[in-house]
Amino acid sequence: MPPAAIRQVRWPKWSDMLQSLSQSDAMKLLIVKLGGSVITDKRKPFAIKHTVVKRLAKELKGVPGPLVIVHGGGSFGHPLALKYRIADGYREKDQLMGVSLTHLAMEKLNKYLIEALQKEGIPAIAFQPSACVLSSDGRIKSMELGPLRRILALGLVPVLYGDVVFDVKKGFSILSGDQLVSYLARKLGATRVVFGVDVDGVYTSCPKRNDRAELLRVITPSDVKLVASMEKDETGDVTGGMQAKVRELLELAKFGVEAEIVNAARANVLKEALRGKRGLGTIVTGGK
Amino acid sequence: MPPAAIRQVRWPKWSDMLQSLSQSDAMKLLIVKLGGSVITDKRKPFAIKHTVVKRLAKELKGVPGPLVIVHGGGSFGHPLALKYRIADGYREKDQLMGVSLTHLAMEKLNKYLIEALQKEGIPAIAFQPSACVLSSDGRIKSMELGPLRRILALGLVPVLYGDVVFDVKKGFSILSGDQLVSYLARKLGATRVVFGVDVDGVYTSCPKRNDRAELLRVITPSDVKLVASMEKDETGDVTGGMQAKVRELLELAKFGVEAEIVNAARANVLKEALRGKRGLGTIVTGGK
Repeated sequence: MPPAAIRQVRWPKWSDMLQSLSQSDAMKLLIVKLGGSVITDKRKPFAIKHTVVKRLAKELKGVPGPLVIVHGGGSFGHPLALKYRIADGYREKDQLMGVSLTHLAMEKLNKYLIEALQKEGIPAIAFQPSACVLSSDGRIKSMELGPLRRILALGLVPVLYGDVVFDVKKGFSILSGDQLVSYLARKLGATRVVFGVDVDGVYTSCPKRNDRAELLRVITPSDVKLVASMEKDETGDVTGGMQAKVRELLELAKFGVEAEIVNAARANVLKEALRGKRGLGTIVTGGK
Repeated sequence: MPPAAIRQVRWPKWSDMLQSLSQSDAMKLLIVKLGGSVITDKRKPFAIKHTVVKRLAKELKGVPGPLVIVHGGGSFGHPLALKYRIADGYREKDQLMGVSLTHLAMEKLNKYLIEALQKEGIPAIAFQPSACVLSSDGRIKSMELGPLRRILALGLVPVLYGDVVFDVKKGFSILSGDQLVSYLARKLGATRVVFGVDVDGVYTSCPKRNDRAELLRVITPSDVKLVASMEKDETGDVTGGMQAKVRELLELAKFGVEAEIVNAARANVLKEALRGKRGLGTIVTGGK
């Protein structure tokens, strides 16, 4: 190893990078959520949509500036979480194996995504929410953000996921990817959040079951009644489906962060949204 | 869902469990390190010793009281960390893919271990060090321990590992499983630490290459010169091999936590050590 003086010359002053991130690059921070229904087939347990994941990895390549990826549970996390009633919190010892299995299932899905991103040359790194989040009755109470900030400053792409997290009131609970995105966007100061789902945006009711469902182009906090009237998702999504998603994003809009919910099941829609195009789906904004 | 009053009656007061952990059960906290050379074949990349892992999972079953498992990198982490010079810290952008690959390799090994533990009915859960640790020049600077404490209070078994962690001075560095064990034992107040390796304990020199190597039964802080004279490991272990292990444990001994390094490659040795038997290998102790 060369002497300390030489080593210091050769190493980039990465602490300066961190400094600059907090000033300029952080202004461009993008957070993208990949819905579980986009990357997995929710009708079959542990079924990845391989072609879609491969395509999305290509679309995520070359995003300018720092990027955080969060994905949902799809057919990996939800069935186990439902079976063991993880969202209800600790009730009996038998649930512990359920916690173990649910988390492992999420890691398996995460690993698959990481590998797809690596193949496109994206230096992606798994980031386990349950190792750094404490929740209280299902809401994030605290999250250690130091490692995540440094990952972004270095130019790595962290890939987080909805997870079983440990809860000061309930023992454990489910942290949805949606809540996580909203929290991180606020704490890290994201410019924009893009939610990739498997429909064209937010509808007045479920477009898969109702022909009269209308696509909403913009949702603002004044639409709170409309959101409350939206149908509940009955497809075994333990985190509340589209209604819960919109609620999280309306909270975020209050802090000035705009989000757009777009159809990531269609080629290039996510890609264009990540490169700044607006109006491809439903914009959730503070309305000013 | 039942009304709040009923729910409160049905839920065990898990916060009381946490309270009791800090008083009685924590007194029994065991931390076990599974060496990379025990669970993998270091001569071949990504080679798990399947039969050994299965046997160790059985030996880990039924450990009384809370248990933390930490494993090394073996032929998963070390070759990649070496190739991309991860331990040197950030020097160039090309290392980022190395960080990505090294972490993923560690997760793959971890996943295999978790599955083996689940098969034995142990509710094991992966715990990613890089998501909650910040290091400074390769030493742990801070670690968020809230989630880990709650995992233990619930009766889950966290499984941590040597990892690429993010470093306030070097950008990233390698956190050895050995350092992690020593840190956790101190912070969580472990009673005992058991290190499973693939030799009978600590020798004066490498027993695999030197017939005159003598097994040391006890090492105390007064043996610091002896430890300094131990041969350096030259087998591509980026975390320093046996000498570094003993140094970590001597640090720990100063805080009153006794450790024993035993041969986990032999059947039932780890099992007996975890059930309280002393003197099966090399004891590292404060010497009082």
